[in-house]
Amino acid sequence: MRTLFLLGASLAAVAAVSRPATAVDEGMWLFNKPPAKELQERYGFEVTPEFLEHLQLSCVRFSTGGSGSFVSGQGLVMTNHHVGSEMIAKLSTNERDLLADGFTAQRMSEELACPDLELDCLWSIEDVTARVNADVKPEMSTGQALAARRAAMAAIEAEAKAKTGLKPEIVTLYQGGQYHLYQYKNYKDVRLVFAPEKQAAFFGGDPDNFEFPRFNLDCCFFRVYEDGKPIQPRHWLKWNEEGAKDGDLVFVAGHPGSTERAYTMAHLEFLRDVRLPFGLAGLWRTEVWLKTFSDRSEEWRRIAEDDLFGVQNSRKALTGRLAGLQDPVLWERKADAERKLRAAVAANPDWQAKWGGAWDEIAAAQNAYRAYYHRFSALGGGSLNLGSELAGVAKTLVRIADEKQKPNGERLREYSDAALESLEFQLFSPAPVYPDLEAHRLTMRLSQMAEVLGGSDPAVVAALAGKSPRARAEELIGGTKLADIAERKRLYEGGKAAIDASNDPLIGLVKALDAESRSLRKRWEDEVQSVERNAYAKIAAANFAVYGDSVYPDATFTLRLSYGKIAGYEENGRRVPAFTNLGGLYQRAAERKEQYPFEVPASWAKAKRKLDLDVPFDFVSTCDIIGGNSGSPTVDRHGAVVGLIFDGNIQSLAWDIAFDEVQGRAVSVDARAMIETFRKVYGANALADELLRKSPPRS
Amino acid sequence: MRTLFLLGASLAAVAAVSRPATAVDEGMWLFNKPPAKELQERYGFEVTPEFLEHLQLSCVRFSTGGSGSFVSGQGLVMTNHHVGSEMIAKLSTNERDLLADGFTAQRMSEELACPDLELDCLWSIEDVTARVNADVKPEMSTGQALAARRAAMAAIEAEAKAKTGLKPEIVTLYQGGQYHLYQYKNYKDVRLVFAPEKQAAFFGGDPDNFEFPRFNLDCCFFRVYEDGKPIQPRHWLKWNEEGAKDGDLVFVAGHPGSTERAYTMAHLEFLRDVRLPFGLAGLWRTEVWLKTFSDRSEEWRRIAEDDLFGVQNSRKALTGRLAGLQDPVLWERKADAERKLRAAVAANPDWQAKWGGAWDEIAAAQNAYRAYYHRFSALGGGSLNLGSELAGVAKTLVRIADEKQKPNGERLREYSDAALESLEFQLFSPAPVYPDLEAHRLTMRLSQMAEVLGGSDPAVVAALAGKSPRARAEELIGGTKLADIAERKRLYEGGKAAIDASNDPLIGLVKALDAESRSLRKRWEDEVQSVERNAYAKIAAANFAVYGDSVYPDATFTLRLSYGKIAGYEENGRRVPAFTNLGGLYQRAAERKEQYPFEVPASWAKAKRKLDLDVPFDFVSTCDIIGGNSGSPTVDRHGAVVGLIFDGNIQSLAWDIAFDEVQGRAVSVDARAMIETFRKVYGANALADELLRKSPPRS
Repeated sequence: MRTLFLLGASLAAVAAVSRPATAVDEGMWLFNKPPAKELQERYGFEVTPEFLEHLQLSCVRFSTGGSGSFVSGQGLVMTNHHVGSEMIAKLSTNERDLLADGFTAQRMSEELACPDLELDCLWSIEDVTARVNADVKPEMSTGQALAARRAAMAAIEAEAKAKTGLKPEIVTLYQGGQYHLYQYKNYKDVRLVFAPEKQAAFFGGDPDNFEFPRFNLDCCFFRVYEDGKPIQPRHWLKWNEEGAKDGDLVFVAGHPGSTERAYTMAHLEFLRDVRLPFGLAGLWRTEVWLKTFSDRSEEWRRIAEDDLFGVQNSRKALTGRLAGLQDPVLWERKADAERKLRAAVAANPDWQAKWGGAWDEIAAAQNAYRAYYHRFSALGGGSLNLGSELAGVAKTLVRIADEKQKPNGERLREYSDAALESLEFQLFSPAPVYPDLEAHRLTMRLSQMAEVLGGSDPAVVAALAGKSPRARAEELIGGTKLADIAERKRLYEGGKAAIDASNDPLIGLVKALDAESRSLRKRWEDEVQSVERNAYAKIAAANFAVYGDSVYPDATFTLRLSYGKIAGYEENGRRVPAFTNLGGLYQRAAERKEQYPFEVPASWAKAKRKLDLDVPFDFVSTCDIIGGNSGSPTVDRHGAVVGLIFDGNIQSLAWDIAFDEVQGRAVSVDARAMIETFRKVYGANALADELLRKSPPRS
Repeated sequence: MRTLFLLGASLAAVAAVSRPATAVDEGMWLFNKPPAKELQERYGFEVTPEFLEHLQLSCVRFSTGGSGSFVSGQGLVMTNHHVGSEMIAKLSTNERDLLADGFTAQRMSEELACPDLELDCLWSIEDVTARVNADVKPEMSTGQALAARRAAMAAIEAEAKAKTGLKPEIVTLYQGGQYHLYQYKNYKDVRLVFAPEKQAAFFGGDPDNFEFPRFNLDCCFFRVYEDGKPIQPRHWLKWNEEGAKDGDLVFVAGHPGSTERAYTMAHLEFLRDVRLPFGLAGLWRTEVWLKTFSDRSEEWRRIAEDDLFGVQNSRKALTGRLAGLQDPVLWERKADAERKLRAAVAANPDWQAKWGGAWDEIAAAQNAYRAYYHRFSALGGGSLNLGSELAGVAKTLVRIADEKQKPNGERLREYSDAALESLEFQLFSPAPVYPDLEAHRLTMRLSQMAEVLGGSDPAVVAALAGKSPRARAEELIGGTKLADIAERKRLYEGGKAAIDASNDPLIGLVKALDAESRSLRKRWEDEVQSVERNAYAKIAAANFAVYGDSVYPDATFTLRLSYGKIAGYEENGRRVPAFTNLGGLYQRAAERKEQYPFEVPASWAKAKRKLDLDVPFDFVSTCDIIGGNSGSPTVDRHGAVVGLIFDGNIQSLAWDIAFDEVQGRAVSVDARAMIETFRKVYGANALADELLRKSPPRS
């Protein structure tokens, strides 16, 4: 499970206010608004400021789209293998396939520096709602209001950055109900310490993904450096060597990517009938294209492997999400909740006057969006995503040159001054780029563009320049110089003049498409995004008025706290126990005759006799998570690690829309399985010792 | 390669008049209008009536969507493994996996009777254009004209069947330019004689499909019985033991499924921008759904294997076809040809008055069709295809009960009296049905319906009946009794009264959808099909007037003759030789480290020492073929077998739109490879002897 970044969908992702939590372990709570009452009532647990601060400062967010945590005083970070796999792939070559073989640094000097991984640790939170809205006047259109807020946000972020040096990010909560300034400590020197082979991390592959029982060692470890030395974080999580047991209260602290629990019915209808079908079709397309590419040679399989995994993972997640939306029972439950809230608002004339129109405003916005959603998406959405790394570089270079001509407050959000440091880090990444894969992906996107827009559409004609998608993509990738980082720097530093003068073919492609892409983005901002912000702010207010304070916002890929208990469930009349054990992997492999992807990893076959097969391996809990929570620590009442979130089961996939703990569960690797296998399968005793504070790591 | 039957697309498949053949080996010629002049001029070959009759009566058409030929005096039929694989799968069980293991009958008593395979041998051809058009009056709308023709066709077919007992089929050629009555000898007792294991037939799998060089023994053999005894066909093909060599003239006689070479530009645009994108999206969806199903268990892999292969094969073919349409160079070539023909027509006022409007009429029809194409297709198209075998049974039962209430001439074509014999044979097939696969496929189709129509659409609400797609599909497949052939017979014989009284849930699903499906079909017939028939008849007349007699019609899954030479080609500056040899399989396997799907078949590993590795294996020729030609014999000047068509290369995939022999090639198994491996790998000496007329088969 990872954050799902769909074509064109990321910009449209909306974090809206949710229904109040019911008497279940529901909620992705803000650290500055924790579920104190619920925890007290349900578990007799008092959530203290110290507990929260310790957890918050121990957590990190991965730029690859997942979560993690500090687990030693020497900057050691734990996350999932599938959160680290993009880096593991980038650190691999045809001679050194770290995904296939795994990696263990026996000492710090052997750790491998990642080319473009950033970790963010949330340092502070401040409510800046009033400042963000200060320049919004009643007579403004929603589009004007959006521009006013954007200018304020850029100013606040620039000011914060100048003051603290931290990485600022204003988070839109309750979809416009509140704006909080999050400031992050940003780390860019991150090194790989340990990863098992993929066959152990992802045993059972796509067939068993999002299933339970599971037998996966889906972990890997990095270390954060500053000035060439491991950092010593103020807070880091201790390891609970005894682990947790059935029924125990546990917490998950991490970065859920996005949920749509507070969408209005009209908005959900757009999601069900327009956005998810288009997104899924794109995933099926990409999965088949990447699979056929991978099948052409062993080398191509390796270079496309992590991409293919990501696509399959998203496909399975979205399939479950859409299945939830297509279920008339769940649909009626959501409709009923909306009817109740609207009735409560309608019953109060003042409320009705202030907020009563919000639902219809959102419906009208969705309706307007239908007219150009497919076109906008096929052209790469608001970020002009053309599916190729190098085309992405070209896009960044063209857009930043234009945006830098404008005052900070008028720029596209992702090019504001506060965003430039990370932008440059990614733009100048030395990570390998594979021309064959690039050409294949670009062919696919050009072909998709022709399908969706029609082969005779002016944008398609301009993009293809008289060639077939395949011939054009090969010409573009063959002719561009953007694989060369020096060339990227030259164009970046040369600014608008350099871009105008460039005849790089990929720069040319972006120039040909950028005007329409920007114009569609503007239209979306004015007709959809700004209307939603406005209307959801009203609905948030209505929710607070009707249900009181105990409301958490939809996920926004920012730090949240979930809680729950370790608990199995019933499925098809069978009891599914909460824990699996190490022996289960061998049994599952035997059941499936060790056919791909159910082979026992070679290292595990060798170590079988030494292993204690009764050691708990993976377990499920009722903690409320979603894609983006991958890599989150699962901790006990004392904040010590008992597990590592890596997945949700099939029944949890509809949590995107509505939480339910009848069968839905979060899945963690058990802390005990890590120590047992680190020592007996991987000879990673230094790592185990560091986690258990038995000895410091060797340098 | 096989005939591509797409969702809803088969009905819309159009066979139109093509451009005249240029100075290349182009053309899928009618047996009653052979390319005599071209063959004489290009190869000095005189095509005699005897040559044609011998070939025609030696050929058969497979109901599974391919071609074949009689190759012995005892009713032995040769085709491709991938044409026979549907039957091979149906003859398999969890204990006897004939796809995985292959099959060799050492004597006739061991041959395995297929559950529902029909072979058709074309007995006679008669031009009935005048009779079909006899009742069409100038004042009729195109829809009325279509109905008048349909009534005439049903009458002609019924009369023919009463007279000869043969299976009649009126073929619409030049998309309405001509109507020919084809009468077939139909065979229903067909038994499996020999099939290699799939790993030998389909070595290299999806990655190497439609590629060359190739190393595939893609053949299998059946025997036709009547009254419990092998038939003795009047004509059958002899085996050329010496084989053919580079540069030799060869012929292919088979049943190309459909081409779109004579489509107008507006029609091609519809194909490029609407039909193919929707069809491909459906294939991606199905491929991913079947793959995830297959991955769940070994048993499920087996039962879905042939379906999955078919989908991957179609996906690759359509990808190539769409790539051709998206190529601006090919597009311009087609546009230029259309401009020239229209200019020639416009230059003659009489022609212009009679035919000049045809192109705009077709454009208007495509435009009208765009408004409901997706809805029509998602509801299963004209044949209400719901993606499940049992739902297909329900559909047939519901529709035949209604249709039988009408006079023969007013029925839907596929339920006319002349069609009932084959319909019953298929309806009462004892082939196994797998409930898990049925439920999975039906889930997929219900979900697709909800995506395309929207979850709140009345048709979707009716189909789902308050349940999620998964829950509803499981309820329908779990509750239906239509797996029981006796129940099918009871409902079939009980007619409308029995159907009205039935509360079988699948019958109920069909009843809920049938009215709209029929109404959309009627709309399509009136607004699109009938207009196309009319307009293409004009274009056909214009073509004959401008270019003379030498014009072949687009493919219609009826018997055609192609010719060409054995010849390699250049690719990326490399020479690709025309032949591969048996040793190449071992080399290719080694190159790909024997990873799936490149494993040397176990039987081949064992036999390697005995084999003559220099024996030619597969070869390419310039013969003009398309999906449906799979299993066609490749014969020499004397009509003797030198090979067996099984594929086209990637470059041939655009042949659907326009033939080109620069790189495009047809791929055959060499006759010599069959004999060599039958004897030395499979111990199938009886088969080899029968083919070489060394001894008759043992009973």
